Amino acid sequence: MSAAEASTAPGPARDELVRVSETQARSWTDSVFRACGMRDTDADIVAEHLVGADLRGVYSHGLMRVPNYVKRLQTGVISATANPEVIADHGAVAIVDGRNAMGQVVGLYAMELAIEKAGVLGTSFVAVRGSNHYGTCAHFVEMAVQRDMIGISGTIGSKNIMAPWGGTVPLLGNNPFGVGIPAGRHDPVILDMALSIAAGGKIQLAAKTGRKIPKDWAYDRHGRPTTDAVEAWSHLMVRPLGDYKGYAMAFVVALLSALLSDAAFGADVKDLHEDFVNPQNVGHYMQAIDVRRFREPASFRRAVDAAIDAMHGAPRAAGVAEIFVPGEPEARLARQQREQGIAYDRHVLAELDGVGEQLRTGPMPRPSASGAVVARKV
Amino acid sequence: MSAAEASTAPGPARDELVRVSETQARSWTDSVFRACGMRDTDADIVAEHLVGADLRGVYSHGLMRVPNYVKRLQTGVISATANPEVIADHGAVAIVDGRNAMGQVVGLYAMELAIEKAGVLGTSFVAVRGSNHYGTCAHFVEMAVQRDMIGISGTIGSKNIMAPWGGTVPLLGNNPFGVGIPAGRHDPVILDMALSIAAGGKIQLAAKTGRKIPKDWAYDRHGRPTTDAVEAWSHLMVRPLGDYKGYAMAFVVALLSALLSDAAFGADVKDLHEDFVNPQNVGHYMQAIDVRRFREPASFRRAVDAAIDAMHGAPRAAGVAEIFVPGEPEARLARQQREQGIAYDRHVLAELDGVGEQLRTGPMPRPSASGAVVARKV
Repeated sequence: MSAAEASTAPGPARDELVRVSETQARSWTDSVFRACGMRDTDADIVAEHLVGADLRGVYSHGLMRVPNYVKRLQTGVISATANPEVIADHGAVAIVDGRNAMGQVVGLYAMELAIEKAGVLGTSFVAVRGSNHYGTCAHFVEMAVQRDMIGISGTIGSKNIMAPWGGTVPLLGNNPFGVGIPAGRHDPVILDMALSIAAGGKIQLAAKTGRKIPKDWAYDRHGRPTTDAVEAWSHLMVRPLGDYKGYAMAFVVALLSALLSDAAFGADVKDLHEDFVNPQNVGHYMQAIDVRRFREPASFRRAVDAAIDAMHGAPRAAGVAEIFVPGEPEARLARQQREQGIAYDRHVLAELDGVGEQLRTGPMPRPSASGAVVARKV
Repeated sequence: MSAAEASTAPGPARDELVRVSETQARSWTDSVFRACGMRDTDADIVAEHLVGADLRGVYSHGLMRVPNYVKRLQTGVISATANPEVIADHGAVAIVDGRNAMGQVVGLYAMELAIEKAGVLGTSFVAVRGSNHYGTCAHFVEMAVQRDMIGISGTIGSKNIMAPWGGTVPLLGNNPFGVGIPAGRHDPVILDMALSIAAGGKIQLAAKTGRKIPKDWAYDRHGRPTTDAVEAWSHLMVRPLGDYKGYAMAFVVALLSALLSDAAFGADVKDLHEDFVNPQNVGHYMQAIDVRRFREPASFRRAVDAAIDAMHGAPRAAGVAEIFVPGEPEARLARQQREQGIAYDRHVLAELDGVGEQLRTGPMPRPSASGAVVARKV
């Protein structure tokens, strides 16, 4: 992903940006989830996760999610107060039942367990059920990276938007997975990807703005490629990357995420945006691999740096300014937004203000008149 | 992959097929590798692996590889007699040094260790260095599947044919990975894929037969998409699936395969087909996850069967006869070829006969006149 893509797609249009500091965004989000009945520590976990995604330009998994999450907590389809529990534990593996708590809370609990086990035995695999939409894979694999470990995670998507290859009905999520690998001088390598050619959010954006979409992004209701964004968005069915290969990966990520832990699969996956009655029973998996059991971490980090340097130093095609490794554009943007504030779309902020009003936690803070930042191109 | 694709691409043209029984092919291959100085057990391992790939229609990783492997053994760039060794071992993880033995031998040793560790602790991660081209990921993950485990493996490709996204020089292999998941009534789910849109073998075939290639398969020497198969094949640089996503995955598979074990990465990876002096120091990784630590295996198998049934039962797009899950077309073809004999291209057999002649192990056996099978469409 280029830095430009990371910063703007499916994020805000550039002339509609307002910058909010990380601290302000965290504090506002905290208060929202506390007002929904969550404990302070759990509200903090969700706020850190969502604002962290926005910092990295992954707006699709940031505060844009708050209205849906709040509605789910208020209807009780997600439990505000449940505690995840370990229901099976043996050596390097475990099953965590999220007890229908927020996915970010469950995911963090499960990855902490995976890290603890890998610290003792070198690696681990934790299967999760009874969870909800957990946010970005990146967040969890970075937890492992901070302990000199490689982190791996995958999850069932919270809405079925991919058909089996050749089919016309979406039976799979755009199931994402992530891998985080520590580096030294460089930012860690953070792969976090779903398995469609284009994110659903890009198709939504095209539908909203009356633009056509490339014909390899999505299908119409008959399973034929379409350039009509409105048709594509109305019953979203994304095209997997590499055709049958992306479908095959989505299927395998689903099995790893749901079947060891007995979470929901296929038609049993309730729609995050449509069903506010039935808990989702989302499944995930978390793995950690402790680098120090293989080689001295400083030496490993140098080797990763050298690998990154090799990619950076490759001769470039005409028109290519820079070569990136996975996670690099996002890390760069996060540094910038940590300093300058996070660029939010005014319409997203207005929606968040509405949530704050309803919960009586107040609107999202804006920069003061003197401190106002007119967003530059990022 | 459709059954038709699996059976013919990049396999033999249909009018040039001769069927050889699995037993005959195994026995001939055994004798070839014994004649190269390998121990009987090791020669058996390689023969089983290669003929297994041919059975499944993965001809690119079957006996077609024999001439190259034999040359590598004869020049001594691969050791015929070395024994892989565990050089670090802690809990659920280990490092195996292949000591430059054949990759199939090293891979099997490492996966057996991964299975043993997972049997005790629930999961494992074995990093490998000092190996060679190891064949198909499918073979190794199936070893785990046979023990009611999920198997995962990845490897550095033995030739750099992918540039970092935006680059013009191949610095990465088309690094494949595999995941195997046990099923019940159905064949196990076996994902085994590289990260390009089209296999290098397909580009080679087009170059040999004077056909153009689709413009999303490969690049010319300037990093521009090309339809000229000869140009594309002359300095092969394949297009990653999903553009930067496939590149990102190839990079991450490379780091997992090579950097924990300190195997060769990037420009240090010697070309399998060009360099007969320097050992390759190929890296792999092997993971196993023991299903029984999560749930009763029969119950897990039923859940996987139900997931497969759900994919099979999806409404199909016009013109689609059947929906497959990963590994299904290959398993079906393997059953068929186990009964009817493996369909080999006459030109491949002629090349193998040449190897047999040089080693004085004789030509590949053909069916007797009475038992001759004229290959039907498979």
